[in-house]
Amino acid sequence: MRSVMVQIPNTPTSADVARLAGVSRATVSYVLNNTSAVRISEPTRRRVREAARELGYVPHAAARSLRAGHSRMVLMPAPAIPVGPLYSRFLNELQWALGRLDYTVVQYGSVGLQGDEAARAWAELRPVAVLVPGAGLGPQGVHVLKRSGARAVVTLGPDRVEGAHALLMDHEAVGQCAGAHLYEGGRRRIGVVVPEEAGLEAYSRPRLAGVRQALQGTDATVTELPLAYTEEAAARLAARLAVPGRESGLDALFAYNDEYAMLLMRALQDEGVRIPQELAVIGADDLMLGRLLRPRLSTVHIELPSGRDLAELVDRAVRDPGGEPEVHRVLGASVVRRESS
Amino acid sequence: MRSVMVQIPNTPTSADVARLAGVSRATVSYVLNNTSAVRISEPTRRRVREAARELGYVPHAAARSLRAGHSRMVLMPAPAIPVGPLYSRFLNELQWALGRLDYTVVQYGSVGLQGDEAARAWAELRPVAVLVPGAGLGPQGVHVLKRSGARAVVTLGPDRVEGAHALLMDHEAVGQCAGAHLYEGGRRRIGVVVPEEAGLEAYSRPRLAGVRQALQGTDATVTELPLAYTEEAAARLAARLAVPGRESGLDALFAYNDEYAMLLMRALQDEGVRIPQELAVIGADDLMLGRLLRPRLSTVHIELPSGRDLAELVDRAVRDPGGEPEVHRVLGASVVRRESS
Repeated sequence: MRSVMVQIPNTPTSADVARLAGVSRATVSYVLNNTSAVRISEPTRRRVREAARELGYVPHAAARSLRAGHSRMVLMPAPAIPVGPLYSRFLNELQWALGRLDYTVVQYGSVGLQGDEAARAWAELRPVAVLVPGAGLGPQGVHVLKRSGARAVVTLGPDRVEGAHALLMDHEAVGQCAGAHLYEGGRRRIGVVVPEEAGLEAYSRPRLAGVRQALQGTDATVTELPLAYTEEAAARLAARLAVPGRESGLDALFAYNDEYAMLLMRALQDEGVRIPQELAVIGADDLMLGRLLRPRLSTVHIELPSGRDLAELVDRAVRDPGGEPEVHRVLGASVVRRESS
Repeated sequence: MRSVMVQIPNTPTSADVARLAGVSRATVSYVLNNTSAVRISEPTRRRVREAARELGYVPHAAARSLRAGHSRMVLMPAPAIPVGPLYSRFLNELQWALGRLDYTVVQYGSVGLQGDEAARAWAELRPVAVLVPGAGLGPQGVHVLKRSGARAVVTLGPDRVEGAHALLMDHEAVGQCAGAHLYEGGRRRIGVVVPEEAGLEAYSRPRLAGVRQALQGTDATVTELPLAYTEEAAARLAARLAVPGRESGLDALFAYNDEYAMLLMRALQDEGVRIPQELAVIGADDLMLGRLLRPRLSTVHIELPSGRDLAELVDRAVRDPGGEPEVHRVLGASVVRRESS
């Protein structure tokens, strides 16, 4: 492995640019990498840029990062499940904020790869920082990434991982909010919807646990209600819940999020269940559509970390890779009471 | 630029692995890149893999692609606006299908970069294929990507771009469907919602044009209705539309998509407008939530290209980079009539 010359036929190299512009390859490199430390006249800079444009020459990010010792790439795994509007907005804000700090965000499609094995695949791209939402990455994965040149690894999940900065996102708080709200409203037989769709356990389990925590030591009971996101499944569950003198005798539902809540509330209304008189319903995410229903849907408003704050944490960590890992608790949760609870 | 040795302190190199395993660097390279052409005993392979694991050595994707002449990276620009459930599902299927063909999908956050300038930034990562949704990339951008080693460039948008494969996604068809449906239902004064949110023009303009096309030469009129995605804006628009003897005299609405349709339908109902008797409403996207409203929302069902078909097109194009660009018309649109129209 001696040369980094690209082997693709016809691909122009910096040597071609240097020849056309009548300058050295070092000058080409200085100009195209915007090195301000070296004084090069404006006409020469212009000549190099014009030659590069004429030849269609593009610097090789990897070769450049090899020289610089690191890249400006921030890598995130691409979401493996369709994302909701809340997370989609967070991602956009984060990309924008990192872009302003001159980083490039790359979402890596880690299909079929998990945890530390995924970390090895990410490391091959030699990112300067890695952001990992959810659980799964272990200390070994963090180590592999750092050995490969990542100056910062930041996890966004329920727990700290050794060697990594942590934005602790505690979805239990979402369930705690909902559970406490229903209890304070006098409800004692509380059903908690658990989506059957794969990939949502990372959120639904802690939300369920949060409801249990909120009700621990009280006279309230918690019933798990598995539900697939289809009208048919919602109709079946609603029919079971609507039976007069039904065994479960539920008087309240925390429906995982607003989408499941909307689906189930409609099915319950079709069964003649009066909401909230007979059954209180609360969702989570504070989607606008929940306000369009009648009764208006109560919800848990979730505050994701600010994309700008996260971008600044990444930049701080990249500049000071030896610093102590930062730990921040970032997920805010608060009840928005409307008419359904 | 003579050496590709990584300059990051402590980063293990293939030379370290070779030393620990007691083999040549060539052998390390053969084993870790799974080269089957070279016969290497299983014990030696194991020794190399163990040494790599012990040292935390990860091959450098860029260096490997420099040797191979190309990478296995398929690059897509990351969406610049929050994505809906339909596109999110398409992206997931596509990533999965490309993963099965041993490609890695990388979504590049091109914040602030557009068109051919963005293409130059993408080219720095030396992807083997590039998929570009929407308009914006021109022939010059395609050229830059190809000169930098991309074997296939595929656009997903309204028009062909010279040198690129094209999946033609014609959002005019969505508007045509909706317009024809409303006309056949006897409606003649048709309002078309145009979202005020930035980034949606690429879809809303052709949808509006499609409605106009469907109604060309008839006695129907088309009225543009700008609308922001807020309850307040919807209430204002609904109040204007609900005035008795109102100037516009609209009798039907194509509301851009289901989300805007749900928002506006609720506001119209709050104003006492009877749907569909006084005003027919149709959305687009066929979201499940539209079926939960009363009256149930009519919609245009949109068929995105299959992620699997697109993955196969990419693979075909990578294997035969000199082939004639393929052009496919991929967007299906059909009316799902429910109760609101």
